[in-house]
Amino acid sequence: MNMQTKNVNTHLTEIKDYFKVAISVDCVIFGFDNDELKVLLIESDLKEYRGKWSLLGDIVRPDEDLENAAYRVLLERTGLENVYMQQVHAFGALNRHPAGRVVSVAYYSLVNVEHIELKLLNNDLHWHPVKDILQKDMAFDHKDILNTCLERLRQQIIEQPVGFNLLPRKFTLRDLQNLYEAILDVKLDRRNFRKKFFAMDVLIDLNEEEEEVRHRPAKLYGFNAERYSQQKKKSLGF
Amino acid sequence: MNMQTKNVNTHLTEIKDYFKVAISVDCVIFGFDNDELKVLLIESDLKEYRGKWSLLGDIVRPDEDLENAAYRVLLERTGLENVYMQQVHAFGALNRHPAGRVVSVAYYSLVNVEHIELKLLNNDLHWHPVKDILQKDMAFDHKDILNTCLERLRQQIIEQPVGFNLLPRKFTLRDLQNLYEAILDVKLDRRNFRKKFFAMDVLIDLNEEEEEVRHRPAKLYGFNAERYSQQKKKSLGF
Repeated sequence: MNMQTKNVNTHLTEIKDYFKVAISVDCVIFGFDNDELKVLLIESDLKEYRGKWSLLGDIVRPDEDLENAAYRVLLERTGLENVYMQQVHAFGALNRHPAGRVVSVAYYSLVNVEHIELKLLNNDLHWHPVKDILQKDMAFDHKDILNTCLERLRQQIIEQPVGFNLLPRKFTLRDLQNLYEAILDVKLDRRNFRKKFFAMDVLIDLNEEEEEVRHRPAKLYGFNAERYSQQKKKSLGF
Repeated sequence: MNMQTKNVNTHLTEIKDYFKVAISVDCVIFGFDNDELKVLLIESDLKEYRGKWSLLGDIVRPDEDLENAAYRVLLERTGLENVYMQQVHAFGALNRHPAGRVVSVAYYSLVNVEHIELKLLNNDLHWHPVKDILQKDMAFDHKDILNTCLERLRQQIIEQPVGFNLLPRKFTLRDLQNLYEAILDVKLDRRNFRKKFFAMDVLIDLNEEEEEVRHRPAKLYGFNAERYSQQKKKSLGF
């Protein structure tokens, strides 16, 4: 027991040498616009990555926890509050940051581009189609982070109705299907898609129709969050 | 633009003050034994938490990434390799560790307690029923970490067949249902449960029966991982 206590103390002394890491948060902010899934990016200002696109992120300060840091980044850079946000993954590869060991915790957010007004403090902020940016180089390991968050979004949108965060409060069934098709990058059968959604019973028929469209106006729906959370408790089955 | 560049440089100088964090990994190792979900714990040796139970974890070393650190902890403390492991969440509350700011990345593992031989280098390692330990104090924020990993396990086991990692290679339908009931902490209807699993078509009938049991021997099944991954690609619907 003495022996063990001694080992433990050694370990506690050594531990001091390990307090040399910095923690950052990176926010993958997804939006849906023009039937495309988009992500909000900024041009990197580090010389190593000059001209490459980077996620919005920052070092976590000594007085804030991880989530507060992520909300701060969102608010400072975009003016967004009360946004759907979820921690996805911590990235800690050895040489991922030129300034030293920086472990970054990635969050993804879903925002409706119509409902928000980006407080574009910085002109370098841009919405990029996810498909396009994945063909290009990005700063740091941000492409890995983006891919991981995209994968999580794809998984979540199948399992939970998070996609409604990306839509306006009133949407057509076509909008809803476009959203799923854009995120999952597949073509879905119209009839089956609608049948599934009606069977899930999470849509509210708003008894309204689209306005100012050239084609025949479609019915507008809303998402019934309450109904969904009731149902969720009953389900079992993958 | 000059103004902006200046700000950025300031930021890069300041960043040096932020390299004062340590990163750790904590492993929530779940096992299933005697129809109970268990977790592998060790008695804390920090004086602040003397006598309280702690997850298996360690500081991430300068030469290893997060996942390597988690696999090292598993191997060193339990002798386990090739284990189902998944990163769950990073915990970064301000005062979670008495030695300074330590952000911990939590992993959960699923092991079959019958198939493994715990290399009990340390006699303080114990399998605890999850239900019991959640009634007690734990060291650090380890109860939060355990709860978060348990929540993830519950979600995963409904959506994906990860639970088979906790079962022996050959199991009865009763074992399978016991596993689900233990993890979800519910009673499930026997007929519905079996119907669901047969409908999913992921079980292999091994044409064998239990041996050395007092009751009528039940049929043994295995998990058809290949069939599952084929099906997965086709599904859509939460």
